[in-house]
Amino acid sequence: MAVTFPEGFLASATTAGIKPSGKPDLCLIALSPGAPDPARQGAAIVLTRNAVVGAPVLVARRVRAAMLSGRGPAPRAVLINSGNSNAATGDRGLRDAQETAALAAARLGVPPEAVLPSSTGVIGRPLPVGKIAEAIPSLVGALARGPEADAAAARAIMTTDLVPKSARASVDLAGHRVRIGAIAKGSGMIAPRLDSAFGPPSPQATMLAFITTDAAVDAPTLQRLIEPACAASFNRISVDNHPSCSDTVAVLASGMARGPGGGPVPPIRPGTPEAEALAAALAGVCQDLAEQVVRDGEGATRTFRVTVRGAATDAAAEAMARQVVDSPLVKCAIHGRDPNWGRIVTAAGNAGHPFDPAEASLTIGPVEVYRAGVPIPAALIDPALAQAMASARVELALTVGRGPGASWMIGCDLSAGYVSINADYTT
Amino acid sequence: MAVTFPEGFLASATTAGIKPSGKPDLCLIALSPGAPDPARQGAAIVLTRNAVVGAPVLVARRVRAAMLSGRGPAPRAVLINSGNSNAATGDRGLRDAQETAALAAARLGVPPEAVLPSSTGVIGRPLPVGKIAEAIPSLVGALARGPEADAAAARAIMTTDLVPKSARASVDLAGHRVRIGAIAKGSGMIAPRLDSAFGPPSPQATMLAFITTDAAVDAPTLQRLIEPACAASFNRISVDNHPSCSDTVAVLASGMARGPGGGPVPPIRPGTPEAEALAAALAGVCQDLAEQVVRDGEGATRTFRVTVRGAATDAAAEAMARQVVDSPLVKCAIHGRDPNWGRIVTAAGNAGHPFDPAEASLTIGPVEVYRAGVPIPAALIDPALAQAMASARVELALTVGRGPGASWMIGCDLSAGYVSINADYTT
Repeated sequence: MAVTFPEGFLASATTAGIKPSGKPDLCLIALSPGAPDPARQGAAIVLTRNAVVGAPVLVARRVRAAMLSGRGPAPRAVLINSGNSNAATGDRGLRDAQETAALAAARLGVPPEAVLPSSTGVIGRPLPVGKIAEAIPSLVGALARGPEADAAAARAIMTTDLVPKSARASVDLAGHRVRIGAIAKGSGMIAPRLDSAFGPPSPQATMLAFITTDAAVDAPTLQRLIEPACAASFNRISVDNHPSCSDTVAVLASGMARGPGGGPVPPIRPGTPEAEALAAALAGVCQDLAEQVVRDGEGATRTFRVTVRGAATDAAAEAMARQVVDSPLVKCAIHGRDPNWGRIVTAAGNAGHPFDPAEASLTIGPVEVYRAGVPIPAALIDPALAQAMASARVELALTVGRGPGASWMIGCDLSAGYVSINADYTT
Repeated sequence: MAVTFPEGFLASATTAGIKPSGKPDLCLIALSPGAPDPARQGAAIVLTRNAVVGAPVLVARRVRAAMLSGRGPAPRAVLINSGNSNAATGDRGLRDAQETAALAAARLGVPPEAVLPSSTGVIGRPLPVGKIAEAIPSLVGALARGPEADAAAARAIMTTDLVPKSARASVDLAGHRVRIGAIAKGSGMIAPRLDSAFGPPSPQATMLAFITTDAAVDAPTLQRLIEPACAASFNRISVDNHPSCSDTVAVLASGMARGPGGGPVPPIRPGTPEAEALAAALAGVCQDLAEQVVRDGEGATRTFRVTVRGAATDAAAEAMARQVVDSPLVKCAIHGRDPNWGRIVTAAGNAGHPFDPAEASLTIGPVEVYRAGVPIPAALIDPALAQAMASARVELALTVGRGPGASWMIGCDLSAGYVSINADYTT
């Protein structure tokens, strides 16, 4: 089970006819009916930092601001369509997003702003509101809990994905257990740089992830738990260094886990060991999903992680890791199983941050191939190196100096399949 | 003619055996013998900003600093080898670069520091000094002027290049004519971000360009003329967003053009119309070479230029243009002749700079396809658009707001050929 694994959640999916392929394209995830209690039934939303965003992202920004300031409710449901991103659709797109969400809300019996719209797919075409409106009654009617509903939800949000993606976790909090369930989609336009509701806005695939939990947690607390989880997961993957206009992670909390005595679970307070345990579990689920996304990256045959250590700051290490993970020369070398340390080192050298060759080293799998600015010839003919380059996940560990800064990125190889997928696809 | 087109230059090339292929791999460009006059026979050097650099770049930094401060001579020759970049070779690499340059200098009868070494090719292998030393006497003996010497020089510096690259220009300066000649190489690891001798160092293919002129110009003046020329040419191209550790542009001036009365040409003073005319001619030659490099980009079947206008600053416009030109999704769309405006617009939106969809527009060739945040449906079926997408040079003009900032970048498409070249190549 996935999104309906936690207590209090239902899901359903259908084919509204948005995708020309006739595959499922509409999905609803909703809290079970019941009186909303904002202190127990919080939500959190993390969004793309791209300056060009789809209409659902504009709606989500408003919903989030109202929710966090206490001026509006936390969403109780998410209505997701694939096949059309409702981006570059102007004012009409904004009205369409709000109208479809309101139709679902009316059917669910909740306020219009309690349904969060989310869209992925082709850019620049009007959302087929009529088709969605027609599908909503049966979509709401089919809401259910269980493996079938979860699998249908994960499939209905796919676009160029080859496989559906889901994750789940249980975590024990001081005598009671809470659950987390999640689905995600993403294969191309993947390099999420998700924002923070608390920091200054700054710009950046379509990567969508929807997470449910039956923990009792209010919106501001949940928002503060999910943001670091996103920073250490979705923001650490890149398929194509092209963040989308629609990237969205939404979390809904039902507060319906049972407490120690079988009664209501106590609300999670910031800074407590319970908050930390939930944060760790959320981070684990996000990392699981993020790895599934990059593994299903367009044309990918293997993934690689580059860990940079010894930089002046974590941000410098991240900038270096991004140069490596996004270099087409490095990605082709990973595809060709070529331990091309020269491309890796020079990519990191391009980040605009200090790189001290005298203190530098590069290890591929278990084999150190470069140290103090020069390659280690014996390492390059070590069979363990060939084995490391042939593995499904290639591990690169690069030290660039003696600083305290460290970070990592996970990417995928660049294949002829990637070119074929993207040179033939049409807007 | 190319590098020996200006008065006072000789060139030669040979096969020293550095490349396993047995193709030409050693080249010498030198001022004709004669007494050096620093005020007339200046030079200029512009280098990669990558934090990881080859030994010849370290040598060139020292030569440049000494030359510009008057502590050392302007180079009178450049010794260039292909097949081995002498990078990631440690202290030995530095000694090897200096030793080979000194051997050529001794044969030419000039001080050791008057020969600038330059290398391109495989990273991390010791420079075969013995082979180069053996070849130097015949290389110096074969120095000559004319189309044959020029063509041989252009071929000897090639690595993965499919075609040799050269350019020339003549410019009239107040009654007399000066000449410019140039050769360049580059196909992969191309995204030069060349430095400035006067600005703070900041990090970033192997792109090599060697330019000669018979204008009379001292080193500081020539350096100030070539830097803006590089910024508007080599720094405006990207094949793979992976600047090399060896990018170098070197200019040698002979001062041997004849003046109005047949006597020595007058030295060029900064800020004069003559300096401006020479700067414009140098920029023209650099742009010609840069376009040849990107056209010969690995796997490229066509090039595209994206011009960004209306940004807050030129730097913001450049950052947006770089996101577009380096997006693998945009590069694949150019390959597939797909007018995928959505990828172009969302790529620009990722630069971290303001993008106002209401003020935005995108024109492909002569056809405006996107305006005020939405696509123009009729444009997308305009035959002129299909024609623009099929041209050898696709022109994208993107307006992102009402600011004064503008810039441009020239890139190439991403083909299956690119993957094959780079997944099979070994360090």
